[in-house]
Amino acid sequence: MPRQLHLNAFLMNTGHHEASWRLPESDPYAHVDLAHYVHLARVAERGTFDSLFLADGPQLWNNLAQRPAGALEPLTLLTALATATEHIGLIATASTSYNSPYNLARRFASLDIVSGGRAGWNIVTTAGAEAARNFGLDAEPAHAERYARAGEFLDVAFKLWDSWEDDAIVADKAAGVWGDDARIHPPRHRGTYFQVEGALNVPRSPQGYPLLVQAGSSEDGKRFAARYAEAVFTAQQTIEDARAFYADLKARTSAAGRDPGHIKVLPGIVPVIGSTEAEARELERTLEEHIVYAHGVGRLESLLHLPSGALELDAPLPDDLPSEDAIEGAKSRYTLVVELARRERLTVRELIGRLGGGRGHLTFAGTPEQVADAIETWFTQSAADGFNIMPPVLPSGLDAFVDHVVPILRARGLLRAEYGPRTTLRERYGLPRPANQYTTRENALV
Amino acid sequence: MPRQLHLNAFLMNTGHHEASWRLPESDPYAHVDLAHYVHLARVAERGTFDSLFLADGPQLWNNLAQRPAGALEPLTLLTALATATEHIGLIATASTSYNSPYNLARRFASLDIVSGGRAGWNIVTTAGAEAARNFGLDAEPAHAERYARAGEFLDVAFKLWDSWEDDAIVADKAAGVWGDDARIHPPRHRGTYFQVEGALNVPRSPQGYPLLVQAGSSEDGKRFAARYAEAVFTAQQTIEDARAFYADLKARTSAAGRDPGHIKVLPGIVPVIGSTEAEARELERTLEEHIVYAHGVGRLESLLHLPSGALELDAPLPDDLPSEDAIEGAKSRYTLVVELARRERLTVRELIGRLGGGRGHLTFAGTPEQVADAIETWFTQSAADGFNIMPPVLPSGLDAFVDHVVPILRARGLLRAEYGPRTTLRERYGLPRPANQYTTRENALV
Repeated sequence: MPRQLHLNAFLMNTGHHEASWRLPESDPYAHVDLAHYVHLARVAERGTFDSLFLADGPQLWNNLAQRPAGALEPLTLLTALATATEHIGLIATASTSYNSPYNLARRFASLDIVSGGRAGWNIVTTAGAEAARNFGLDAEPAHAERYARAGEFLDVAFKLWDSWEDDAIVADKAAGVWGDDARIHPPRHRGTYFQVEGALNVPRSPQGYPLLVQAGSSEDGKRFAARYAEAVFTAQQTIEDARAFYADLKARTSAAGRDPGHIKVLPGIVPVIGSTEAEARELERTLEEHIVYAHGVGRLESLLHLPSGALELDAPLPDDLPSEDAIEGAKSRYTLVVELARRERLTVRELIGRLGGGRGHLTFAGTPEQVADAIETWFTQSAADGFNIMPPVLPSGLDAFVDHVVPILRARGLLRAEYGPRTTLRERYGLPRPANQYTTRENALV
Repeated sequence: MPRQLHLNAFLMNTGHHEASWRLPESDPYAHVDLAHYVHLARVAERGTFDSLFLADGPQLWNNLAQRPAGALEPLTLLTALATATEHIGLIATASTSYNSPYNLARRFASLDIVSGGRAGWNIVTTAGAEAARNFGLDAEPAHAERYARAGEFLDVAFKLWDSWEDDAIVADKAAGVWGDDARIHPPRHRGTYFQVEGALNVPRSPQGYPLLVQAGSSEDGKRFAARYAEAVFTAQQTIEDARAFYADLKARTSAAGRDPGHIKVLPGIVPVIGSTEAEARELERTLEEHIVYAHGVGRLESLLHLPSGALELDAPLPDDLPSEDAIEGAKSRYTLVVELARRERLTVRELIGRLGGGRGHLTFAGTPEQVADAIETWFTQSAADGFNIMPPVLPSGLDAFVDHVVPILRARGLLRAEYGPRTTLRERYGLPRPANQYTTRENALV
């Protein structure tokens, strides 16, 4: 069997295109409709995706006037989806800056148990002052500081997830002994950002801990990924950039002492699918026509750290933009957008059109065959281990992908035809279950 | 129709009796088995209970040797149960001391949306140094300080839950206007314990906010309940004490400017049910025989703030115990236990036997008729608006209650025979949906 593609469905209310909610088919209340997400999860499971994923940040992201705002809390929504699905992995975004390790480690362990080992954690440090001000801070912590905290957060989380050895429960009814306290290991952690004394109050979960996912492509982000991440979401506009990113991340992972096969690189793709190329272009055009450009200018100014009014719709980006080093959040997205505009000599209007679909992720319009070709090319030319599929419109864009692209990928032997027996998310991605750091060969029962 | 009983099912792994896990019928892994809880929830729904409830604390509560330890995180488990049930309310315990208002308000709003308005929050301040040390503190905050923080937590949570007016979503596709930002109200809260600037990132939920439940019976606890609680769980050993508590809490609620009918008082009861009185006593005896008394002594010493070795199994409690004022956590439970031992002149062994069932809640062994009589007496004599049902063994004790006690209560016209149309948890308890503090008559659409 050839190497297998890994597919993740990135679900976001009515779709990744900012104007998707305005289409006649779209439900503007989809973002808080469990039935909508249950439907999407089942479609993704029909397409034998490895996992589905929800982005998140602990703040109201945009003005309501512009487009759907707010979302169900991801771990809550994924728990509900766990009961409506059987095989697909469930990846929630959660912030290391605005959670405590004890509570978050427990919630992921609980989701992992409830889902039979299908939990994944997209680890984010959460850029922006808006989030910081919802948690008692006046300004956002510096980028490097956020990552330092994230590293210590992970170390504490590992201690908590390992605080129960796998065989801590003895269940000796006759003797009246339920568990073995010698197999409980309180972290007794006293670090820079956290003090956590006691063991977790939930047993070790089927996967040991959730699949660890990461999506920051800044220097700090890549260092963090190389050390911890098992899957990486990334925005790449060209196969050359994607190959360079892929090679770099695998090399960093090796350098960090890990097996480079144990980090899966999944670029985002916004597939705009038509039964002919013209039909795909037509859908793309329809979506662009529904963009409210006045809003797009404001968002672009905000991303580029420019004052309101600095950009003109039909002019190119100004020359004197700040360098990435001066940016405190979403560093790699900033650079990607600026380079995209410069490389393709886009006006602000054109740039907004290009970003409307995937916020910097690759938008690819074409027939199912063309989409499958693009995926196969990136996959076989060391640019990707799989893809983060970001349908522009939901559910129709996911339906189109599953009904028309998935069969081609299967026919080419790149994607499983069925799930087979139930297994954990980590096994789907071909990764081993992590050992418990406190279990030594001497005390292990097996 | 006569006044209706409110019933809540307090679910706890293999049951409320500490030795329940040792019975042949019990699954020692039940505490992390979703199917076990789904079964219990459906049994409770068959019994047309108003709600089910999960206790919690962010620490490992007991040694593993003694009895099942750890539990699925309650909001996670209740979200999974929401999808497996249709009518029953879902009440999760969560701490105001070890959560941030933004995250917790969002999680309850999300559960409320996912469950169609069935979320409830048992508000606890979390006693004990063990929990504190899992969240960066060296010792537990003082009792009064915990309640001061809880009060501010609630005020912030109300601002967050009201930060979207009910009609904030406009969904005008033609104009490209999704929502009305004038109907969003960021809290901009700067208080003693919290600074929370921005609006919640989830719309107002079906109930506005979860049903607010409280279970502290200390002075601070009762003051808090009178101000905020819509349902109160309480441990009462005699009908006289229960009547006094009931009258006091209703009076305090009136004095706080609220309708005393809008706070429902639910004493806990551990019903040990047999088809004859002798059979009920036999079950009680079987459970007591499975208690490991050495563990019970240690726990009692800990509750009473006594050094290890201070208690003798076959002697009464010592005379020189500290007063309730000197206790920082679980104050009312402390007093209840001491008074129970003194009133009934119990030895330490007998006291442990009595506490083994309900940890201070009323244990009542008898036939279904006798259990129903006790419930009706308390209910009609102003000692209770309903009961917190705490089966000693699960699922068998809940099955027995639903199959044998519930039909009697229904025949007496005290309990609904069926749920009728789907409705919110707050409506089940006969309470109005709270108004949004920011919606004025001038700007309301209706």
